[in-house]
Amino acid sequence: MKNQTYRMTMLYDFYGELLTERQREFFDLYYNDDLSLSEIAENAGISRQGVRDVIVRAEAQMQEIEDKTGLIRRFEQMRGHLNAIQAAVEGIRSLNNRLYEDPRLRDLTDQIEREAAALRE
Amino acid sequence: MKNQTYRMTMLYDFYGELLTERQREFFDLYYNDDLSLSEIAENAGISRQGVRDVIVRAEAQMQEIEDKTGLIRRFEQMRGHLNAIQAAVEGIRSLNNRLYEDPRLRDLTDQIEREAAALRE
Repeated sequence: MKNQTYRMTMLYDFYGELLTERQREFFDLYYNDDLSLSEIAENAGISRQGVRDVIVRAEAQMQEIEDKTGLIRRFEQMRGHLNAIQAAVEGIRSLNNRLYEDPRLRDLTDQIEREAAALRE
Repeated sequence: MKNQTYRMTMLYDFYGELLTERQREFFDLYYNDDLSLSEIAENAGISRQGVRDVIVRAEAQMQEIEDKTGLIRRFEQMRGHLNAIQAAVEGIRSLNNRLYEDPRLRDLTDQIEREAAALRE
């Protein structure tokens, strides 16, 4: 299951609060704290298969919500636009450095870059 | 209920696909097609109170998901950054119009504006 850690982390970031406390606990130990299923099982006093079932069910629920709402997909499409803004910012900065050396132009360009960076968070 | 149409439209845009078909149908007729509860009730062959219950329950479910995930709040915070980008774009455009009249600068500025507009959608 761990080969899908990026996708799982995104699902958990968006939809983790919709899980039960137990699902969140196991998911967190497995994907964020990198414990094995056996380690989690031992700590919780249940079978390895039991832990696995809880995590698999949590994944399926979150994936189902994403399939319906498409909100992660929407966030990911934003990246393309932010990359295009960054490219244009660098074009303006380069023109300003070569030709105008205008500090107002530099400040405005830096400002756009900062705001675009904040949008990535 | 209709004094909250903006909030309801946002909830529906984000989480509408998580509702049942019947909830979606009534919600849509009420908020998007602007039918009254009585009109929806008559068409569906159920009581006005029955329609109202379905819609109120749908609203509560979507609001609960938003309270847990905060995804609409996250999208709305983005607007502040996009407004700041737009303000900086206008600053660059103004400098260019007054001082440099550089078509490359104009194109790059227009490009940032277009990408930022796409991010609002």
